[in-house]
Amino acid sequence: MANVLILMGSDSDFDVMKKAAKVLSEMDVSFEIDVCSAHRTPDRAKKYAEEAEQRGIEVIIAAAGMAAHLAGFIAAHTTLPVIGVPVASGALNGFDALLSTVQMPPGVPVATVGINGAENAAYLACEILSLKYPEIRDRLKHKRKEMYNTVIEKSEKIKKK
Amino acid sequence: MANVLILMGSDSDFDVMKKAAKVLSEMDVSFEIDVCSAHRTPDRAKKYAEEAEQRGIEVIIAAAGMAAHLAGFIAAHTTLPVIGVPVASGALNGFDALLSTVQMPPGVPVATVGINGAENAAYLACEILSLKYPEIRDRLKHKRKEMYNTVIEKSEKIKKK
Amino acid sequence: MANVLILMGSDSDFDVMKKAAKVLSEMDVSFEIDVCSAHRTPDRAKKYAEEAEQRGIEVIIAAAGMAAHLAGFIAAHTTLPVIGVPVASGALNGFDALLSTVQMPPGVPVATVGINGAENAAYLACEILSLKYPEIRDRLKHKRKEMYNTVIEKSEKIKKK
Amino acid sequence: MANVLILMGSDSDFDVMKKAAKVLSEMDVSFEIDVCSAHRTPDRAKKYAEEAEQRGIEVIIAAAGMAAHLAGFIAAHTTLPVIGVPVASGALNGFDALLSTVQMPPGVPVATVGINGAENAAYLACEILSLKYPEIRDRLKHKRKEMYNTVIEKSEKIKKK
Amino acid sequence: MANVLILMGSDSDFDVMKKAAKVLSEMDVSFEIDVCSAHRTPDRAKKYAEEAEQRGIEVIIAAAGMAAHLAGFIAAHTTLPVIGVPVASGALNGFDALLSTVQMPPGVPVATVGINGAENAAYLACEILSLKYPEIRDRLKHKRKEMYNTVIEKSEKIKKK
Amino acid sequence: MANVLILMGSDSDFDVMKKAAKVLSEMDVSFEIDVCSAHRTPDRAKKYAEEAEQRGIEVIIAAAGMAAHLAGFIAAHTTLPVIGVPVASGALNGFDALLSTVQMPPGVPVATVGINGAENAAYLACEILSLKYPEIRDRLKHKRKEMYNTVIEKSEKIKKK
Amino acid sequence: MANVLILMGSDSDFDVMKKAAKVLSEMDVSFEIDVCSAHRTPDRAKKYAEEAEQRGIEVIIAAAGMAAHLAGFIAAHTTLPVIGVPVASGALNGFDALLSTVQMPPGVPVATVGINGAENAAYLACEILSLKYPEIRDRLKHKRKEMYNTVIEKSEKIKKK
Amino acid sequence: MANVLILMGSDSDFDVMKKAAKVLSEMDVSFEIDVCSAHRTPDRAKKYAEEAEQRGIEVIIAAAGMAAHLAGFIAAHTTLPVIGVPVASGALNGFDALLSTVQMPPGVPVATVGINGAENAAYLACEILSLKYPEIRDRLKHKRKEMYNTVIEKSEKIKKK
Repeated sequence: MANVLILMGSDSDFDVMKKAAKVLSEMDVSFEIDVCSAHRTPDRAKKYAEEAEQRGIEVIIAAAGMAAHLAGFIAAHTTLPVIGVPVASGALNGFDALLSTVQMPPGVPVATVGINGAENAAYLACEILSLKYPEIRDRLKHKRKEMYNTVIEKSEKIKKK
Repeated sequence: MANVLILMGSDSDFDVMKKAAKVLSEMDVSFEIDVCSAHRTPDRAKKYAEEAEQRGIEVIIAAAGMAAHLAGFIAAHTTLPVIGVPVASGALNGFDALLSTVQMPPGVPVATVGINGAENAAYLACEILSLKYPEIRDRLKHKRKEMYNTVIEKSEKIKKK
Repeated sequence: MANVLILMGSDSDFDVMKKAAKVLSEMDVSFEIDVCSAHRTPDRAKKYAEEAEQRGIEVIIAAAGMAAHLAGFIAAHTTLPVIGVPVASGALNGFDALLSTVQMPPGVPVATVGINGAENAAYLACEILSLKYPEIRDRLKHKRKEMYNTVIEKSEKIKKK
Repeated sequence: MANVLILMGSDSDFDVMKKAAKVLSEMDVSFEIDVCSAHRTPDRAKKYAEEAEQRGIEVIIAAAGMAAHLAGFIAAHTTLPVIGVPVASGALNGFDALLSTVQMPPGVPVATVGINGAENAAYLACEILSLKYPEIRDRLKHKRKEMYNTVIEKSEKIKKK
Repeated sequence: MANVLILMGSDSDFDVMKKAAKVLSEMDVSFEIDVCSAHRTPDRAKKYAEEAEQRGIEVIIAAAGMAAHLAGFIAAHTTLPVIGVPVASGALNGFDALLSTVQMPPGVPVATVGINGAENAAYLACEILSLKYPEIRDRLKHKRKEMYNTVIEKSEKIKKK
Repeated sequence: MANVLILMGSDSDFDVMKKAAKVLSEMDVSFEIDVCSAHRTPDRAKKYAEEAEQRGIEVIIAAAGMAAHLAGFIAAHTTLPVIGVPVASGALNGFDALLSTVQMPPGVPVATVGINGAENAAYLACEILSLKYPEIRDRLKHKRKEMYNTVIEKSEKIKKK
Repeated sequence: MANVLILMGSDSDFDVMKKAAKVLSEMDVSFEIDVCSAHRTPDRAKKYAEEAEQRGIEVIIAAAGMAAHLAGFIAAHTTLPVIGVPVASGALNGFDALLSTVQMPPGVPVATVGINGAENAAYLACEILSLKYPEIRDRLKHKRKEMYNTVIEKSEKIKKK
Repeated sequence: MANVLILMGSDSDFDVMKKAAKVLSEMDVSFEIDVCSAHRTPDRAKKYAEEAEQRGIEVIIAAAGMAAHLAGFIAAHTTLPVIGVPVASGALNGFDALLSTVQMPPGVPVATVGINGAENAAYLACEILSLKYPEIRDRLKHKRKEMYNTVIEKSEKIKKK
């Protein structure tokens, strides 16, 4: 059963968002991933958002660039937590996407991560899922230790230089 | 019959958008004005956008602040020209709304005017309507002359100082 | 039992953050609220973060202005979901706080809401808690309907003008 | 007969603006395209703007970079709708052009699209022309369906990965 | 005989630009001041620019806010030195006017001063006129000494605190 | 005899500033060009500024990147007109240099051109020198005609495509 | 004997900088404070910088707004540590001053604190002086404890609300 | 004995920070360099900060990109002077890191240098150490003379072109 739904406004976002897929796989969290534009396929985006809950989706990750409306659009049609990933594209390199994603009006939040922050979107989804699935929290804690150890290894390499 | 539909994301935008209403009245263009949020009332916004054409609306003006998705949302559901007015509100004073309104993806344009540019949204609507209604162009040309004369009057006052 | 912990970097953030408290109260979600600075009381912030899980906290909201490190600091010490609220203060009016909160490195996410977005932080916390507590989702859905109705009421007032 | 006039401030803008030409061709809308600088050939720009209406032009698209004055200059000399395309060039990569194009004073609007938004300028021109030429609206609706289908195709490719 | 022409895009710029007038008066440099909009009275702006040289004008100061095109417009129609003053107005507080004034294309320069820098526009005009009128340079040098002395007086006041 | 002094804060600015030298050569205006840092060789910069007038320099062009103080430093030590060229370098690509150059305090102006605007700095110097040397104005007018013709040629090429 | 020299570009900076004076007094560190402009009194600024070391000054704090060159100017004339305080003034509210102060070229550093960060400039001066005067470090540690306690007191007040 | 501790938030910062190491070596100042993340290894960062003083460290340099919390984190745990280096990385190219590093709250300063300003961090550390070690000041003065001479050499090369 899928727990997380990853939507991208454009297939060109896949190079960024495959990192989210990779993290979810590593954390053994099932997910779906699809392209779905708030502007070119609004009815499909609406359907995805409205049916997500009953289909058993528990967290949605939505990624888009420029006037990035996808996450906010999805959030307007569901009360599931929606994580927004501003994607760097076009002349403003994601700065527009960041503001378009994060500055939501009261009542319809988007949990925004950094520009191109696909991995953090996945980790945040795992943290949220941990409320209900304690084994995911265990994996997160394990991952944190790995990150710690990676820094220590890098530390040792740097000291040798 | 209404030619122009003015939608605002929040009633707090009315102080800005009443200037658009005033210009349209002066230009003798009929219009409707309503509050309609892309995030709090998405189905209503969708209905407004989808029914506009058959209801005889010819131009839509959509105003919103912060992560201003309203104009883009409307544009996604109609092929009528949609004019976007970024409204100055919140900590970033409309800069976020400008980027959220103007940086639309290819295929779904929003004709964006300046921050709080309600008057220009109305004048732009009139310029567009002039394609079909030549009498509106006459009024626009008359208005331009008035603007010219207002500058001349101000010029004379300044010279006296 | 408290479900949500609200931390503020400074007591001057209370005027913003009391709106989060109000929303959580309306949604019948218990919470603690405290002042705790990442820079002036780092050990206390660390203790709060490290003990939160075993104390039964399920979501943490952290609000700070300027070089807003509090949310990231907390996130570094826990795998609970951390929601960051950039607070508008100082010469850059929250723009610095937004970037300091959202641009986290891979592995340690902060779920960032808009500048001064205290209400949305609370709504997001409720959406997250809904995974485990379905009755909160019911309240969220009810609240969405209220928001919808509020827009309709405002719509009717605007039309009368 | 030409319906749309595309002006560029510099021939270096052609790489961007040829996409507008391509869209207009696809939509079977006739157009002229020329280089015309507000600063290096102001009299020519003025002549273009002043004569456009009587020459049968119905919409003007003006593209320029940096202190992008061309669209505003043209708008000052005509009541035809003027669509402005801020072009990314120079050290600020189109951010200057965006502000120079969109922040017009009351009375002289420019319908601004996103940075390098040549395609959207053309689509917007088509939406405007549709008021008078219903067959263009039919083509726009057809194009929207194509866009929808393109997303669906991409969706299927992504799902296979 | 007038040496300097001061043009403002709007009479609302007068509160800023009267400081330029004051400096020129103090420096005993004759000047004209007028309101003249590049967008609302382009023909008048063109006439001002084209006739300035033969009327004996030697430097032009042009002040405007938002998409501030006036200085660039004037510069496009004359080879007299044109000093641009970006005026703080609207939601972006002169930041748009700065970029619209300074980022001119090669061949048509605008000598830009800081936002609301009316006094510096006047001092710069005096520095330019000093090439031909050495007595103005003497006054500038005298003024610099006065500025020096003013700082010394303030220094003494501060030290007493 | 040299009329214009070109100073660069770093020899890495030469690639930009050689365009100023080229324009001055074309306009038959003599000039000196040197590297001189406000921060690494302040005494030399001061000497250059203080002696410029008596050495017959009539306009100074100063180019620097990042916290670009050179133009302001020179302006503080002379009443000759100082033209500032913000150079794009470092992580902020000249945006810092623009603000550091243009935002001068009252009394000490810098005539700022666009980022990397070396050519415009040279043209502006020529416009200033034209007050005293009418033959330079003739060359400027001739150059403007050339620019006009270049646009016409480009126009013809574009039309052929 | 004075250890710290505080220089301000303008007496209008005193309202900000008196907080630095207050902190230094509390920490029992002697200091001088004066107004001294890099642009209006460059020779005086140079003298201050060049004589500081032999006069026994050990740290210099320099505060200025807009194109804030003072700290960099001082740093160019001494090898004493120079702390720069960008002051919020003018239309850009200190953002220009921040970039003008911090983005120094290699070899001439300015230790920059936040916009209007007068208190932090003083604390940083104390941290630097502590290398040589251990009793100042003791006072800093004591101050940190006081800050800690102040947060605790605020925490208790907040909890009562 | 080590005088300076250089910490980097990520080993990818080493390409920037090795320049600081090079300057310290040239100035004959001993140092340690290590990778230590405020977010991935907070306990290690805390330990480094808390033990630095008793280990004889006198100045700490901390470099990080994006939401660069490292310098502020270290500063919160020590009263040693902490120099912050914002590193250009990610979509915002160090602009986020600059604000996250410099905009610290009162009481916990970070001496911030420019984006990627590793060399200046090292020079600033030397200036600070000079308070206690006069021989380092001699080397700094010698280095300044070298920088002066380098500019002179470049000047001569430029003049030959």
